[in-house]
Amino acid sequence: MKYKTIKAISLTVLFTVLSGNAFAQDYAPLLLLSKAEAKNISQHLGDYKALEKSFSKVKKGADKALEKPIEVPIPVDNGGGYSHEKHKKNYREMYYSGLAFQVTGDKKYAKFVEDMLLEYAKIYPGLPLHPKRKAEQNSGKLFWQGLNDCVWLVHGIQAYDLVKENISAQNRETIERDVFKSMAAFLSESESGKDTFNKIHNHGTWAVAAVGMTGYVLNDKDMVERALYGSAKDKKTGFIKQIDLLFSPDGYYSEGPYYQRYALQPFMVFAEAINRNQPELKIFDYRNQILRKATNTVLQLTDANGYFFPINDALKEKNFMTEELVFATNIVYENYNETAILPVIQQQGEISISGAGLKSAEAIQNMKKQEFVKNPMIIADGPEGKSGGLALFRMHTKKKDEQLTAVFKFASQGMGHGHFDRLGILLYNNDKEILQDYGAARFLNVESKSGGRYLEENKTWAQASVAHNTVIVDEKSHYDGDWKEAEKQAPHTIFSDISNPAIQIASAVESNAYAGVEMQRTVALIEAETPFMLDILSLKSKESHQYDLNFMYSGQIMETDFKYEPAVTALSPLGKANGYQHLWKLAEAKANPSLSKFTWLNDSRFYTISTLTDDTNKIVMTRLGANDPNFNLRNESGYMVRASDKKNYTFVSIIEPHGSFDPKLESVQDPHSKVEAIQILKQDDNYTAVLVTFKNKKSYTLLFANKKTTPATKHKMTINGKNTEWKGSYTLITN
Amino acid sequence: MKYKTIKAISLTVLFTVLSGNAFAQDYAPLLLLSKAEAKNISQHLGDYKALEKSFSKVKKGADKALEKPIEVPIPVDNGGGYSHEKHKKNYREMYYSGLAFQVTGDKKYAKFVEDMLLEYAKIYPGLPLHPKRKAEQNSGKLFWQGLNDCVWLVHGIQAYDLVKENISAQNRETIERDVFKSMAAFLSESESGKDTFNKIHNHGTWAVAAVGMTGYVLNDKDMVERALYGSAKDKKTGFIKQIDLLFSPDGYYSEGPYYQRYALQPFMVFAEAINRNQPELKIFDYRNQILRKATNTVLQLTDANGYFFPINDALKEKNFMTEELVFATNIVYENYNETAILPVIQQQGEISISGAGLKSAEAIQNMKKQEFVKNPMIIADGPEGKSGGLALFRMHTKKKDEQLTAVFKFASQGMGHGHFDRLGILLYNNDKEILQDYGAARFLNVESKSGGRYLEENKTWAQASVAHNTVIVDEKSHYDGDWKEAEKQAPHTIFSDISNPAIQIASAVESNAYAGVEMQRTVALIEAETPFMLDILSLKSKESHQYDLNFMYSGQIMETDFKYEPAVTALSPLGKANGYQHLWKLAEAKANPSLSKFTWLNDSRFYTISTLTDDTNKIVMTRLGANDPNFNLRNESGYMVRASDKKNYTFVSIIEPHGSFDPKLESVQDPHSKVEAIQILKQDDNYTAVLVTFKNKKSYTLLFANKKTTPATKHKMTINGKNTEWKGSYTLITN
Repeated sequence: MKYKTIKAISLTVLFTVLSGNAFAQDYAPLLLLSKAEAKNISQHLGDYKALEKSFSKVKKGADKALEKPIEVPIPVDNGGGYSHEKHKKNYREMYYSGLAFQVTGDKKYAKFVEDMLLEYAKIYPGLPLHPKRKAEQNSGKLFWQGLNDCVWLVHGIQAYDLVKENISAQNRETIERDVFKSMAAFLSESESGKDTFNKIHNHGTWAVAAVGMTGYVLNDKDMVERALYGSAKDKKTGFIKQIDLLFSPDGYYSEGPYYQRYALQPFMVFAEAINRNQPELKIFDYRNQILRKATNTVLQLTDANGYFFPINDALKEKNFMTEELVFATNIVYENYNETAILPVIQQQGEISISGAGLKSAEAIQNMKKQEFVKNPMIIADGPEGKSGGLALFRMHTKKKDEQLTAVFKFASQGMGHGHFDRLGILLYNNDKEILQDYGAARFLNVESKSGGRYLEENKTWAQASVAHNTVIVDEKSHYDGDWKEAEKQAPHTIFSDISNPAIQIASAVESNAYAGVEMQRTVALIEAETPFMLDILSLKSKESHQYDLNFMYSGQIMETDFKYEPAVTALSPLGKANGYQHLWKLAEAKANPSLSKFTWLNDSRFYTISTLTDDTNKIVMTRLGANDPNFNLRNESGYMVRASDKKNYTFVSIIEPHGSFDPKLESVQDPHSKVEAIQILKQDDNYTAVLVTFKNKKSYTLLFANKKTTPATKHKMTINGKNTEWKGSYTLITN
Repeated sequence: MKYKTIKAISLTVLFTVLSGNAFAQDYAPLLLLSKAEAKNISQHLGDYKALEKSFSKVKKGADKALEKPIEVPIPVDNGGGYSHEKHKKNYREMYYSGLAFQVTGDKKYAKFVEDMLLEYAKIYPGLPLHPKRKAEQNSGKLFWQGLNDCVWLVHGIQAYDLVKENISAQNRETIERDVFKSMAAFLSESESGKDTFNKIHNHGTWAVAAVGMTGYVLNDKDMVERALYGSAKDKKTGFIKQIDLLFSPDGYYSEGPYYQRYALQPFMVFAEAINRNQPELKIFDYRNQILRKATNTVLQLTDANGYFFPINDALKEKNFMTEELVFATNIVYENYNETAILPVIQQQGEISISGAGLKSAEAIQNMKKQEFVKNPMIIADGPEGKSGGLALFRMHTKKKDEQLTAVFKFASQGMGHGHFDRLGILLYNNDKEILQDYGAARFLNVESKSGGRYLEENKTWAQASVAHNTVIVDEKSHYDGDWKEAEKQAPHTIFSDISNPAIQIASAVESNAYAGVEMQRTVALIEAETPFMLDILSLKSKESHQYDLNFMYSGQIMETDFKYEPAVTALSPLGKANGYQHLWKLAEAKANPSLSKFTWLNDSRFYTISTLTDDTNKIVMTRLGANDPNFNLRNESGYMVRASDKKNYTFVSIIEPHGSFDPKLESVQDPHSKVEAIQILKQDDNYTAVLVTFKNKKSYTLLFANKKTTPATKHKMTINGKNTEWKGSYTLITN
């Protein structure tokens, strides 16, 4: 039976070759690149540098592909394995060849796509579920997970759209029946695919984009409607519902920026296709132009080199130069005339070969080199903006081109890719991670590392609370490490303000991470000779607990002002579970009676964490790597301040960049912290007052309301007999 | 008495100010910048970009200095401390102001230098030896070590040379007597200084340069002659003798490139001053233009970003952009018209404000961006080129812009800054360290780290043999860690060849590192689909020993083809002493019966060490950090193949870059080693034959003579009954 089919198809191929293009011109591409745009591109290739570069890459890729025989292997391998990489290569080569055909008009490129699709047509209908599928992931046929099959289809259908005009009716029928309809049915209607297709999740977005675009090209209204409105067409799932639920009104995507980047490709590419085929849907205006906000927000969630803050499951190697975001930025520029985004397109240096890309290449052609402006932002999370959020504080220092960025995360869980990092902070100096997030434990596509999937250590370490710069109660992760429980609750924003040049501040409460413990963190970046971070973390409980405030710093220890006991001839893990089992205990100390300081060097700056302590506090210095039999973990460093047997407790810390280390000039400035004292002046149910004094006698007093209040509300505190009055949530007094 | 002097000087200052410049124009600068050159610079400031940039930096520095009151503190602090940094700042500010005066003609700059020198004149004669001096270092007065005082003088005398014309006779007398003569006497004639002044060592070079240049400016022939020919003027020490002994005929400096960079500043600057004042000495032609070779060689001893290979005591943060080498490259270009060096000057982007700098700025003004060509080199060590040397192998791979560099060090000890790294190797992929050298354990000028000096761990770890990629016998360092013993012996080059496009190779013997043990290492970089390193290390002894072949690799472990026992819940140090006490033992394994493979990932490449083993070999995986109570060490990673209880033993390894890891495209290629087998076909006293087979069935047979031979000598080996004949030291047969 199988052989018969192949024979029949071979005859068809022969026939097509002989009969030439009798069937051409009854179809024109309708997804991302129209015939007119393709012509325009071919005429402007020499005029726009980014266009020339991008098309030359595409054409080179296509030419290289055409040199070799087509191979469509039976899928057998894990991520990183041969068949996996080959099918990825195939869809890329088809996509490149489709583009090359439209721009150059050379039919050999179209022929390549046609031939390859015919090969897929031979094997696809008979494929079983992938042999390397995992129970907890929906399976693909070409790849171990269905997600990759969707990505294949997103590219494959675009390639077909670009060359369809050059394919005979008979071969179109074969290809559409045995590849595209078969695949769309598998991905949206089969037992394995339907569930994902109707998920409010990035996997769902890839699925609906793949199927929806296939619907346009195959002129299958049913496919399109199911993609837009869900399998039942009841608008409870599908693309529109995904747009409603996956982004906050500020364009934050709850899985975090790493997955936002990834999801933006199907969101934007499908939106572009929708807009070209059903302009009446006004998809780019939908929900107050949410797709524009989503793109802008993810671009802001990056360090100075455009690398995404590695919140939740995230690989640190990704920045906004990736292809996914080339599509997104181009489409945003095309549809919103968003000039603020042009510096990113300029940095990307490449454009997508599409109508949007053409417009973008033109726009940056004679533009001077510009920096993408990074702003402080308060980004609300949740579909209605009521599930906490993220504060992004940014201040320049007096050093040339130096910007500090503090990230304070009080957002929702982010589903299965979420980490237990409630009220966690990060600190960056330009692109340098000062207080870091481990990101995900995964070596993408490296076969020897669990087939390139998320490693065991992603659960046991990377997602654990102790892997983050936050507080851990009784050595357990937030929500005891159960993401489904964590998904039910989000922190609450108490107040936030980024309008004040002297201080950027936010305060949030998390009440459900631990039964009976309320956690409130108030984080501020304060303008000073060198800006510093003020961090106030209050815990309230009726029971006694152990509270560990952890900092995963990056750099080399320079000095401490407390004595510690180093573990010099034997190391043992800090704990038994919840991430603690992965930390070697390097040293232990009894904290100082009033202030404990810890200084490290990172690149050309010193950094000190000064924490208000008494001699009941313990300090632990750690390094990651215990219980790691397969050497899956990076050996990062931790500094922990521990308060044991406490009910209510408040940690107050200053995180302070200072001085400089210049190996070129062999000069060192200010290697010692400048903080002199930290005091809690007063704290009750309603108010907190903290005083920080520096060695130069400058002092900063921060007073704030612990509970929600309006900007107009007047507050009064009496401290040491002196009254202070202010309006709104907080006031900062500088002396 | 002291008060009286100060009062007298104050009056003098007043008098000078009133009387203006009655004394000017009877002196013109004679060290590095003539009046004509200064005028030329002022006229061409706008014409040459590098000149404009460099002078603008100088002028800005001078202007900033002039804004603040002059302060010459009593020296009290360690490196990194206030008085230390202030005196460094002072000489830099004087030097900048001197240059600004000559170029702009604005006398305020001259006045600043004069005033500051008068302040130094007040304190200098009365200064005792520095309170923070160390027993083992010669003491300075302004700084804890005399070296820094010499550096002060090198700059101070140049500043004075530039402004002397603007200083009254009376103030000249004060300054020359109480600063320059006093300092020159201290540095060359005092008990503390004389010893260093007559040393064949970089400290000696700074001393003679300082005193010699002072001699020219003060017209003191005696000073100049002592600087050139040593205190006794017998030519047994002094600058000329230093040139004779400190460089090999190939321009290698035995302390290594890090110190070569540092020493080149006084070498080149003083040579320039000599050439301008005593051209008859033809200093730049001396010893076959050795100063030209020394500069070229140090520039070659760098990675793709110009960072010096961290051989011996070396900080890794230094590259050829440092000021020392700006002087050197400019002077080399000026005196030798060395155009090959211009790409380096272009990368430096700055020039020295000097005659040499002016010519350099002009030369690069309209030059296209050029890469500095990095060549394979065999660099002989020793004053006569007979003390072993360094092999520098370089090959491009098929990846764009990717060059592998293998460094094989069989050089002499390098005095007190030398490491016990006989027959050590390094491997770089462009600027990435693949097999690395720790460099020095030191945080330069960081007070909290032993006052910025070399740390204890420099001896206990960084200099130890086990800190290097070489063999360690019975867990002891070469020469038992005694540098004075090690200084007496150097390895011998057996053969080397970089003329063959298929293979770059060198073989060397070290017979004295361990009593009764002869070590021979033969290292080759071999052209292949991806070039690979072949490493053959033979040990011969009549007694049984433990041989540890260590590799300090850099990256994340990906896979091994042997089973290991990881230490997951407790770590202990690998050994007791000689660096072993600093290595945590992470895992231990019994080697495979024929071949053991260890694969790691560094940036975008996989690397595998494949070693010929049998099941008597042990393998140890380690991480640096044990016995480090002050957290002075970086936590680098080691892989060790151990052969116990052996007399004669040969390690054969392939170090092989392979595949790629591209997180942007999410693609992984060839993550597994391609080596199939390694065999020693034959080995006797005279010959070694090794066969390496790859999985694609390509094979490489290397045959070589173990002893010195001439290029014309014919050799014959019979292997498995088959005869092979060749001429010269080695032959490579590829199948």
